[in-house]
Amino acid sequence: MLSSAEQAALTSGTDMWHTTAVADIPSITLTDGPHGVRKQAADAKDLITGEPATCFPPAVALGSSWDPDLVHRVGVALGEEARAMGVAVLLGPGINLKRSPLGGRNFEYYAEDPLLTGILAVEWVKGLQSTGVGASLKHFAVNSQETDRMRVSADVDERTLRELYLRAFQRVVHEAQPWTVMCAYNRVNGVFASEHHWLLTEVLRGEWGFEGVVVSDWGAVVDRVAAVAAGLDLTMPGPDEAGDAALAQAIVDGRLDPAALDTSAARVRALVAKAVAHAAPDATYDEAAHHALAREAAGRSVVLLRNEGGLLPLSTSDTSIAVIGEIAHTPRYQGGGSSQITPTRLDDALSEIRKLTSAPVTFAPGYAVDGTADDALAAEAVETAGGADVAVVFIGTAHETEGADRDGIDLPAGQLALVERVVAANPRTVVVLSNGAVVRTTPWDRTVPALVEGWLLGQAGGGALADVLFGVVNPSGRLAETIPHALADHPSYLDFPGEAGHVRYGEGIHAGYRGFDAREQDVAYPFGFGLSYTTFAYGDASASTVDGGIEVRVPVTNTGDRDGREVVQVYAGLPTSRVRRAPRELKGFANVAIAAGETVEVVVAIPRDDLAYWDPWLKRWAVEGGGYVLAVGASSRDVRTTVTVQVDGDDTRRPLTADSTLGEWLEDPKGVEVLMGAWAAATGGDGDDKRASALADPQIFTFLASLPLQRLTAFAGDEFDADAIARLVAAANA
Amino acid sequence: MLSSAEQAALTSGTDMWHTTAVADIPSITLTDGPHGVRKQAADAKDLITGEPATCFPPAVALGSSWDPDLVHRVGVALGEEARAMGVAVLLGPGINLKRSPLGGRNFEYYAEDPLLTGILAVEWVKGLQSTGVGASLKHFAVNSQETDRMRVSADVDERTLRELYLRAFQRVVHEAQPWTVMCAYNRVNGVFASEHHWLLTEVLRGEWGFEGVVVSDWGAVVDRVAAVAAGLDLTMPGPDEAGDAALAQAIVDGRLDPAALDTSAARVRALVAKAVAHAAPDATYDEAAHHALAREAAGRSVVLLRNEGGLLPLSTSDTSIAVIGEIAHTPRYQGGGSSQITPTRLDDALSEIRKLTSAPVTFAPGYAVDGTADDALAAEAVETAGGADVAVVFIGTAHETEGADRDGIDLPAGQLALVERVVAANPRTVVVLSNGAVVRTTPWDRTVPALVEGWLLGQAGGGALADVLFGVVNPSGRLAETIPHALADHPSYLDFPGEAGHVRYGEGIHAGYRGFDAREQDVAYPFGFGLSYTTFAYGDASASTVDGGIEVRVPVTNTGDRDGREVVQVYAGLPTSRVRRAPRELKGFANVAIAAGETVEVVVAIPRDDLAYWDPWLKRWAVEGGGYVLAVGASSRDVRTTVTVQVDGDDTRRPLTADSTLGEWLEDPKGVEVLMGAWAAATGGDGDDKRASALADPQIFTFLASLPLQRLTAFAGDEFDADAIARLVAAANA
Repeated sequence: MLSSAEQAALTSGTDMWHTTAVADIPSITLTDGPHGVRKQAADAKDLITGEPATCFPPAVALGSSWDPDLVHRVGVALGEEARAMGVAVLLGPGINLKRSPLGGRNFEYYAEDPLLTGILAVEWVKGLQSTGVGASLKHFAVNSQETDRMRVSADVDERTLRELYLRAFQRVVHEAQPWTVMCAYNRVNGVFASEHHWLLTEVLRGEWGFEGVVVSDWGAVVDRVAAVAAGLDLTMPGPDEAGDAALAQAIVDGRLDPAALDTSAARVRALVAKAVAHAAPDATYDEAAHHALAREAAGRSVVLLRNEGGLLPLSTSDTSIAVIGEIAHTPRYQGGGSSQITPTRLDDALSEIRKLTSAPVTFAPGYAVDGTADDALAAEAVETAGGADVAVVFIGTAHETEGADRDGIDLPAGQLALVERVVAANPRTVVVLSNGAVVRTTPWDRTVPALVEGWLLGQAGGGALADVLFGVVNPSGRLAETIPHALADHPSYLDFPGEAGHVRYGEGIHAGYRGFDAREQDVAYPFGFGLSYTTFAYGDASASTVDGGIEVRVPVTNTGDRDGREVVQVYAGLPTSRVRRAPRELKGFANVAIAAGETVEVVVAIPRDDLAYWDPWLKRWAVEGGGYVLAVGASSRDVRTTVTVQVDGDDTRRPLTADSTLGEWLEDPKGVEVLMGAWAAATGGDGDDKRASALADPQIFTFLASLPLQRLTAFAGDEFDADAIARLVAAANA
Repeated sequence: MLSSAEQAALTSGTDMWHTTAVADIPSITLTDGPHGVRKQAADAKDLITGEPATCFPPAVALGSSWDPDLVHRVGVALGEEARAMGVAVLLGPGINLKRSPLGGRNFEYYAEDPLLTGILAVEWVKGLQSTGVGASLKHFAVNSQETDRMRVSADVDERTLRELYLRAFQRVVHEAQPWTVMCAYNRVNGVFASEHHWLLTEVLRGEWGFEGVVVSDWGAVVDRVAAVAAGLDLTMPGPDEAGDAALAQAIVDGRLDPAALDTSAARVRALVAKAVAHAAPDATYDEAAHHALAREAAGRSVVLLRNEGGLLPLSTSDTSIAVIGEIAHTPRYQGGGSSQITPTRLDDALSEIRKLTSAPVTFAPGYAVDGTADDALAAEAVETAGGADVAVVFIGTAHETEGADRDGIDLPAGQLALVERVVAANPRTVVVLSNGAVVRTTPWDRTVPALVEGWLLGQAGGGALADVLFGVVNPSGRLAETIPHALADHPSYLDFPGEAGHVRYGEGIHAGYRGFDAREQDVAYPFGFGLSYTTFAYGDASASTVDGGIEVRVPVTNTGDRDGREVVQVYAGLPTSRVRRAPRELKGFANVAIAAGETVEVVVAIPRDDLAYWDPWLKRWAVEGGGYVLAVGASSRDVRTTVTVQVDGDDTRRPLTADSTLGEWLEDPKGVEVLMGAWAAATGGDGDDKRASALADPQIFTFLASLPLQRLTAFAGDEFDADAIARLVAAANA
């Protein structure tokens, strides 16, 4: 039995990366992820540099793979590396939604959609934890911006929270039970996530059944006592002697229930025990195999946005290739901050292109190493491009990093000017993008025949891009975030990043493509979009209900002459819903390999849970009955076949109260009976009574419909006093 | 000295329209407005019909006049009628903002802009009260929708509240001191307006200096004790014996401070005394003169939206005119609900057109009396139109009414189809609209050469439309609400009307044109837009600071051959603002008559108060220093001349605290001195200290900038413990 002081020490770190050893409980190591193991080097001269580890594609890329199996394999590989490096808990995955294209940490997150995010994150966690290394699901919750990140309150209504910002967390807890969940820096509706009892205890544990440890983001704890009372178990980093003492004193003073600290200490103890049980001091991993996996994963993550006239893949008949752009030589492959990995190797696209072709490959950097314009380099590049059969221009954003939101979505003007000149010099130009989050492609993309979205692809991204360019990989990535024509079009635009300590999630449930669809706005490239070197045709979809959910079947044919992968997407709408809904919400998808000329019957199952909405009146999940319109296709806006299926709803009747309006009473079968009976009794027979005639007049009825029953006392107090109204309520709910 | 029971009786009505006579205090009459005196007829068979009174143009029209003098004269006339009818308080003006085009009561409100609303309402109140009749400024506050109007909580951040939804109320209280303010039905941020101490007492009286009575909207009081405690003085309607008793009991029980009821009773008593002092039992009014004023006001409110090829005004050379549309015969001239007036007379456009021309005027109703399509009537109308020199088609919305929001902004499809056929039969077609709020004009307006927005114009609207059609009146109305291409474009679209008892004002300060401008969206007709039969040219504007505010001067020339009125509008932006601002906010305007060929130097004064923003950190009004860009022109998007003026700002320094971020400390001149001194002392000389080098690395600095000072305890607890941080804060604010 530990003392309060010992429990307090156990629930805070001993240094930056280790828990505190207490009595017979050893210390364990937690380190940053998520796309590599960032174990701080013992001799590091700064806060960032870690021991070499495989830099897998960051989440911005993996999210675009729409490939749960692939993400699972990356999770396994990460676990192998962590285990070999003595790391018990790897701090990932990051599953916050990309609410705005400006989010500085978007490159660490998967998507603007919670279903896609959740499905991928489940596999990442399962893969990682299959190796005996724990995950840390982060950042819980609503950590979708960097501006004022340690103070800002994300002000979000509960339905939006439940259906969007918490939904992926819920899924991962349910399906993969991560060892830890990391609380966010920010406030949620005014309360620090680190002190949010509703989030950390009522929802996370009470409703979802989370069994692990809640660890703080590094420095997220403001008030240690409040945090422990709210359900936060482990404060990092440490030491936190002042906090440890404050906890012990709070128990002495009776301000903290000793059971709270007891419980947190027991959870940390259990985590340590699990880590110890799975420790494998002699473990190693296959660096070359992991590099190959990093390349495969990167290739699956590339999104082909445009390919006019089939310019891609580059053919062997191209007798010369001009590679333009410093990024081809100095890759942009990850973002800055806690996730920044020291890679085991680093491939650049230029070298990898040269490996894949025997044609002469010329190179010109085109702009400075820092991405800014350089007249001489640009002139040289234009000349180089003009002298080749085909030009491939690599451009990209400046450094994206944790800690700062982006200040726009435009690519550097100098690089776009370069593209314009290169295209003029060589109409057969391919543009390859490197960027951690959405960049604007309007209107310049219209002038470019082929456009490849290369995101940040990790250490093997150079090879992956070469694979795609030459068709070694047939691209199958799909956008996990909408590319708008302009930043100002985005649903979040007016409310990001907030001011004075608050950011209002004003678009509510209409985040990302939901908002673009609700407003019927044109976009540059919709959510779910991506081209292939082959083509796919969809037959008619069919749907049936299975276990209360829906199963969709659709035959998909590869109508081209090249094997490929199609990501079949199923979106649902419920036009009769009593709540406002997005026109189409992603409800399932399948990533299927289809050989040239073959047809596959694709099956997408939508469990009943994924049909539920958060009922804001009843404050619970419910499935609404009605005809769900399932739009099946190749993107959120490329719907190829639609099928409607009737689903039986849960009981969502709202009890009638004195605060229910006359309109609500009259809509309710029992309510109308009770109310009209009382009305007739009160006014019966007296033809001169103005009120008696009122309900019969549609114009007057319009007025009355919004009147809460209890306000009848103001207008018809003789007949409807407080007692009479209480009797009506009792009768209606009898 | 009244007893508690007497005070309670005095602070509730005795019936629908009268206060309770108590002791020597007589009863006074309050009746609906605002665009006419709706005194319920003694023999009324329903709840709506009142004694005949002049039906002036509803606020939707007056708002489009942009003419404070005109509105003042209407206020005077309303006062004369009220006095003649023995009415002490007329329930108006309604000055809620038109937040959404769907607002069912938009026809009772002036504009989507608080400055225009406030300036017009000040004159309405001054005019009315100059006759000894009291106004009731309503509905306080944020009553911008009808859906669930008696329960819904308008969830609005304070800056938006202050700068938009409360701003016109503040102006009217400051400048016109209305006798009463009417509280709204809805909740504001969760609290009923009728129980909102912050609204009714702290802001309205404490900050703004309101001296009158707060009266409830009819039936808005839920809990009489809570209402009186919050500052609500008079509960209507009555009787409310249960509430009276509850008040007295609450005082006995000590749940209500007797001073609160005392104060409210004294206020009601003072109101009654004022009413009695101004009563004029023998007063009469000139019905014909008021009808003429109603016609003049209506004429000033018409907005000419389109006039290709100068089709309007109709010339005497038109040898025949086809008038199409039942609305020309059966005018749509006001909305439904509490503001519905029984007019003294009612002019229809058809008859008035016939009076103004000697040419033959044919008529065909074109659609049914209820506005719906009728094939036979349509066919007849098309033939009638085809046989005339010019066709004038009257179309309009179905009934708009208090109590229900609109379900769309489209005109009836049958009427639009009729327009299409009439235009095909006669290309010289004018369309005249009758509608209480914005209707969609996209894309059909492109096919129509002339389009006249006739709103709801009151009982003399028919004559006013004839005046405009024939050029007796040169139109000078300007849009007080943006006409979007589609409802889904509107800033409020995703968040209107809310659900489950809450409506989030998600667009925040970007209501109306502010949002369209912020998103750079194309609109059909912008806020402030309206054509004339003449043209105006603007010279270069100049601006100077006067008494801390700004005075703008601009020469405007009537370059046509017809006298006319121009509404010169001044919008301001502050690109360097530390808060998010709309690109252009209306800050002043002048409605000036300019004779053909003449030039007038127009002066628009912007008082310093109108430059202030609500600082959400300091929680007070402040004027930010900087270069204000003043856009001067004929609409919010027709900027003719721009001038920048430097304004000295108020002190808006925020004190540094332990919760201030390192970034904030380093931006502050004193903060950077204190903090860097402490940092050097803590880490001085030790070149190996990783943290010492951190601030010098821009990448690391990005990280640290968002760290609140107090969180240094987590990362550098040795040097920066709680005591050290307290010393820094003291030093920074010394």
